[in-house]
Amino acid sequence: MDESESIFWRNVALKITQQVEKAINQLIGKKEAGEIIKMGADGTPTKLIDLVAENEVISVLEGVSRQVLLISEEIGELEIGNEIEPISGENKIINPDSKIVFVVDPLDGTSNAIKNIPAFGISIAVAEYSSKNDSAHLNDIQMGFVKNFATGDFFEALKGKGAFLNGEKIHPSSLSELSSSCLGIFIYGNSPDMINNLSQQIRRMRIMGSVAIELCYVANGAYDAFVDIRNNLRVIDIAASQLIISESGGKVSDTEGIPLNSLLKINERTSIVAAGNNKLHDELIKTMEVI
Amino acid sequence: MDESESIFWRNVALKITQQVEKAINQLIGKKEAGEIIKMGADGTPTKLIDLVAENEVISVLEGVSRQVLLISEEIGELEIGNEIEPISGENKIINPDSKIVFVVDPLDGTSNAIKNIPAFGISIAVAEYSSKNDSAHLNDIQMGFVKNFATGDFFEALKGKGAFLNGEKIHPSSLSELSSSCLGIFIYGNSPDMINNLSQQIRRMRIMGSVAIELCYVANGAYDAFVDIRNNLRVIDIAASQLIISESGGKVSDTEGIPLNSLLKINERTSIVAAGNNKLHDELIKTMEVI
Repeated sequence: MDESESIFWRNVALKITQQVEKAINQLIGKKEAGEIIKMGADGTPTKLIDLVAENEVISVLEGVSRQVLLISEEIGELEIGNEIEPISGENKIINPDSKIVFVVDPLDGTSNAIKNIPAFGISIAVAEYSSKNDSAHLNDIQMGFVKNFATGDFFEALKGKGAFLNGEKIHPSSLSELSSSCLGIFIYGNSPDMINNLSQQIRRMRIMGSVAIELCYVANGAYDAFVDIRNNLRVIDIAASQLIISESGGKVSDTEGIPLNSLLKINERTSIVAAGNNKLHDELIKTMEVI
Repeated sequence: MDESESIFWRNVALKITQQVEKAINQLIGKKEAGEIIKMGADGTPTKLIDLVAENEVISVLEGVSRQVLLISEEIGELEIGNEIEPISGENKIINPDSKIVFVVDPLDGTSNAIKNIPAFGISIAVAEYSSKNDSAHLNDIQMGFVKNFATGDFFEALKGKGAFLNGEKIHPSSLSELSSSCLGIFIYGNSPDMINNLSQQIRRMRIMGSVAIELCYVANGAYDAFVDIRNNLRVIDIAASQLIISESGGKVSDTEGIPLNSLLKINERTSIVAAGNNKLHDELIKTMEVI
């Protein structure tokens, strides 16, 4: 993606972030935010606040007058914009051989937003892939944006250019001993034995309930590592954060240590093991193999 | 404690909160905030940011010109102010038969503050007890104040008058089934089997790393319940929050279901089981008896 394209799509992502934040503001901490409206495309119930957030995403993308494929939690996949002839200004930059995909979780940490527990926000990944290919993969992601609406923290990364928090370059933890580490995890319902055993090996554990935000905590070293080993993690939840971690210098893989490169599809699921550095990452993978 | 006394000491607590927040502001998210300065009176290392916070507490109380016993994490117990003859204005209200105790954790969630993970803040409890008694107990606490500096959320309770978040009356969760509950826990280092087993019985688990703030989440229903079963929880950490929960209508006890009434001493330790209502509390206690 060339620089002018990057600037263009970054501005679109910023506008989406701003509009979603504004739209859901009155619903934070409110019971009605949690009313179930319908079933989402990902097979989980869509709550009022999720729908309000996603509608803003669609509305901004519809206003862009560029062709975009949106992959988002509630609506699934949506082609936005026709192949129109560009007329002027920003719209004129179009590469006919490539497709743009927005992979968005309009509101990660919905249950936190409803209770005003301060870890909820948006995740936006922008991928570009050749029209000759059937579909995009995680490796096609060029930009990632995650904002925690509760705190205002805004994480972003542009492929090859590093990762940033509120405009300042971030670096992951250099801590390499599991026994001194602060590990974030995601569990829902039953906690697997592997997590229980892992919890014996570390110093601190955190469960905030927002994978997108907590993965960014690996990128800036607030966490030394993060794992979600359910094999039920939606690729859309990690699409932006995995780039932010890689660009910060951290390491991301699945539970077997294999680099992630899932298809960008609404029903794609994975596991994730993220750490601030290779040594801690290796130690985590080894520990999980044994237990 | 009569109304004018309540207003007087509430203002002191508000001033402490304001001054501490201002003093630590520049240290949030900074590595130097975590430099170990000395060993605290509670036997744990004192970090720079803890010391900066506590110095503000002492400084405000020294300016009050009333006799106060301060119980705080780093300094332990400190008698502040002489038995001076009051001269005018606010200082004239003194009950010679009673003693005022400020039980303060100047910064709960220190490691979060250093990493800017959004759960860290101050806890202040104000107790009044008869000078004829040797020392104060949890039941002597008349007011509790907890502020999450990361979000600005300010919880408070005045005995017999209810509990409030940012000035609005709060109520705990009415959810009574453990299997649907969102449970906050505190663990550090090894996670006991009881927690691992408990995690199988619930819907969501949260570990934010600030007992004072997370107990307040039981008071406003953000959490359905919270447990810290280590028997190593400092009474100063829960002094304010346990009143806030009781005043909200929630229930607090130790792991055996016995109401808390520890001495207000720096080295007093306890466990805590807090829930939004009696039914969920009973279920939690029963579940822990079995496992």
